[in-house]
Amino acid sequence: MNSIIARKKAGFKLSREEIETVVRGATTGEIPDYQLSAFLMAVCWRGMDVEERSHLTRAMAASGRKLDFSAIPGTKVDKHSTGGVGDKTSLVLAPWLAAAGKKVPMISGRGLGFTGGTLDKLAAVPGYDFNSDPKRLSNLLSQVGCFIIGQSADIAPADKKLYALRDVTATVDEISLITASILSKKLAEDIGELVMDVKCGSGAFMQNRREALALARSIADTAHAAGVKTSCLITAMDFPLGRFTGNALETWETLQFCEPDGIYYKTAEKIINKKKPFDPDEQVVRPLVELTLELAVAMLEPIALKDLRRRQKAMGDLMELWRSGALKKKQHEWLTAQGANLSAFAEKVKPILQALEASKGDDGDSVLVFTAPQAGSLAHADGQAIGNLMVELGAGRRRAEDSIDDRTTLEMLAWRGKKLAKNEPILRIYKAGFGTAERQLAMRVLNKALVIRRSPPPPQKVILTKIATP
Amino acid sequence: MNSIIARKKAGFKLSREEIETVVRGATTGEIPDYQLSAFLMAVCWRGMDVEERSHLTRAMAASGRKLDFSAIPGTKVDKHSTGGVGDKTSLVLAPWLAAAGKKVPMISGRGLGFTGGTLDKLAAVPGYDFNSDPKRLSNLLSQVGCFIIGQSADIAPADKKLYALRDVTATVDEISLITASILSKKLAEDIGELVMDVKCGSGAFMQNRREALALARSIADTAHAAGVKTSCLITAMDFPLGRFTGNALETWETLQFCEPDGIYYKTAEKIINKKKPFDPDEQVVRPLVELTLELAVAMLEPIALKDLRRRQKAMGDLMELWRSGALKKKQHEWLTAQGANLSAFAEKVKPILQALEASKGDDGDSVLVFTAPQAGSLAHADGQAIGNLMVELGAGRRRAEDSIDDRTTLEMLAWRGKKLAKNEPILRIYKAGFGTAERQLAMRVLNKALVIRRSPPPPQKVILTKIATP
Repeated sequence: MNSIIARKKAGFKLSREEIETVVRGATTGEIPDYQLSAFLMAVCWRGMDVEERSHLTRAMAASGRKLDFSAIPGTKVDKHSTGGVGDKTSLVLAPWLAAAGKKVPMISGRGLGFTGGTLDKLAAVPGYDFNSDPKRLSNLLSQVGCFIIGQSADIAPADKKLYALRDVTATVDEISLITASILSKKLAEDIGELVMDVKCGSGAFMQNRREALALARSIADTAHAAGVKTSCLITAMDFPLGRFTGNALETWETLQFCEPDGIYYKTAEKIINKKKPFDPDEQVVRPLVELTLELAVAMLEPIALKDLRRRQKAMGDLMELWRSGALKKKQHEWLTAQGANLSAFAEKVKPILQALEASKGDDGDSVLVFTAPQAGSLAHADGQAIGNLMVELGAGRRRAEDSIDDRTTLEMLAWRGKKLAKNEPILRIYKAGFGTAERQLAMRVLNKALVIRRSPPPPQKVILTKIATP
Repeated sequence: MNSIIARKKAGFKLSREEIETVVRGATTGEIPDYQLSAFLMAVCWRGMDVEERSHLTRAMAASGRKLDFSAIPGTKVDKHSTGGVGDKTSLVLAPWLAAAGKKVPMISGRGLGFTGGTLDKLAAVPGYDFNSDPKRLSNLLSQVGCFIIGQSADIAPADKKLYALRDVTATVDEISLITASILSKKLAEDIGELVMDVKCGSGAFMQNRREALALARSIADTAHAAGVKTSCLITAMDFPLGRFTGNALETWETLQFCEPDGIYYKTAEKIINKKKPFDPDEQVVRPLVELTLELAVAMLEPIALKDLRRRQKAMGDLMELWRSGALKKKQHEWLTAQGANLSAFAEKVKPILQALEASKGDDGDSVLVFTAPQAGSLAHADGQAIGNLMVELGAGRRRAEDSIDDRTTLEMLAWRGKKLAKNEPILRIYKAGFGTAERQLAMRVLNKALVIRRSPPPPQKVILTKIATP
């Protein structure tokens, strides 16, 4: 191991055997932590090329259980996001692509830090069951067409080991390590295609376009080298995505999203047909709708990123599934198949929605309404600050062992570019037992995180760049 | 700690407080090894400037016991070498400088790898006592003027901790870490002046001039910043230094060195007066004599490196101490004060010397004579290969826990540039119970390590560069 560290430290390219030695030693515990962490820092220093990355990814994927869906016909596709605030697209995309005939075996993570996790959103639904028994997963995939489960301890254990070390040795941000960490878990899903949503902005781990682009390219190239077709979208992440942020209401929002005649569908139609104006409700959800649509297209038809006619065809097929109710039906089918009790869930979110609604213009016991301190245009949001505030209010975790309150909810009432009168509501936050200190913290954070300027901000796209599979 | 690692990783200069936090945590064990090793690798990556190095050095020196000789008048001076093969100068320099009125509190190390350790050489003398009781050390320093002891566990424990980690994480060769490791132990000696012998060549850790120069400058600057006047000599290290390599006989050689009328003294006179020719015996010891003289001058009079008149005066004073027998007397006084039984030691080395002598031209039971495989000039020696051979033959340690045979001895009979007839002896090796496999190994190594060429090699100086204290 010492010589492997020395070789990487000196800038040499490591062989497959050397990388496998490291991953095996990390998994079995034969290589001590102090050597692994020195190795990780040497990788931060010297990097790894695509070939090394793909060896690392494969070795990490092979360090534990690999799902095997070879007996199930159809293209297996997944979507993975690098993590954002209010990002709930998976809960729409899994049933949507299943309804379109693809197979979607999704393994999702829990949220840590300022971004949410798909697992936590689904855990807010009474009865939803993350059981990952191989037979059950095969049944879900062949009969429903999709599932979303959590990462069990036996999937890519080498990644768990290395991630825990990276977390405490300032070696989290190296692109080869990030790439292998993300892809090793995806490779274990036995998928043939992957769409990556690489978030970029104040509410994402990659805060500038250059870094996001480098990560997207790394993931696309490495996944390709490991045999998975991968397209990447680099997408803006500043304002929370959609109307709601907070686990229970985010899941509830995805149920509204799939309605054939809801505002989400209408917003999509306006986006596609370039119709204006958007209603205020539509403005709030517009970036979420645009993002979900683009991801769905990339998942359905990777070539659509390069071929406009195929793109229009895919978009049309997806809209038809939505309009016809097939999407809604598939979403219910999937959730129910995984044990969800949707009427109990509706009962759970009702008081939250009511409390938010009742407080319009005024603070209720459990709601804080944040209004514009001065007139102007809503120009910028610090997504990370907002995400961290939600963590402080119990919606997320600081440490892996923290418990969360899935009812804590942030509701956006305004959007980027909206003209605001003084004291006009921008957002409201629901929290059961909202204490004075927490309200003061929220006011302090939001006053800084939401920037109002005299002139409107320049227009910003949701989809910043698309990288087609190589 | 995570943020300190992150800051160093990003290339920032660390503050005194940050460096002290690391050293304190390493000493107490509060910072886990995996964070320390990531930190060490980040230092290999980004380096440390002179200020950081001096903070690190001071913090490491302060991590354990510091000797305190403030009550003893006189300038305290030490010499430290980065380690070479056959290097025994300390055993002459300590009493020489003491005889010249300086105080020399030397803490020496054991040998590890291909270079020898002063401690092992002294341990070959029956009765020699490394006891480092503070009162005893003060008495030795005030009454004799010098002592040589081993590094006890309570001196610079942070260095011990970090060195053990560096050894297994490929982070040994970074210049800031080497500098701090060397100087922290020297600072704990409470010295005011230091002379560094930075070895350079095939028998040294620094194999090229550029690296040796960088280390010498780093040590001089860092020591200066930490309040210790330091001059550095960069000296050639290819052929073993002096006639003998091997612990007992090296110590015995230093007794011969100090004789007022021996070949060492005569060689010194010829070097100083530029007289030729040198006898064969003188040729063999010439580099050792020249090195020892130069180190003694630098220890006696740091300014002599810049001032020719002061240099000549210092050289004259030193030669007079030698000629008059004061050096020999002081060496005996010191060794006896530290418990050495010199007559028992003479008995111990006698059979080795006899065995070597008896085998002239022919192999004895315990002696191997290596002769020139062809006629030519002795052009080059691979010092590291020869040092490693001595380790294999039991004269040194591969691991810290290895025991050594202090009788194993290599005796040089030829020197760099000597014209050799075919089958003329170059060196002989004594080893008690010299087995066939070991003899074959020795022949294989020596045939490769000693290079004979048709034309004589260009002349080479022993002292390559001198760096005066800033």
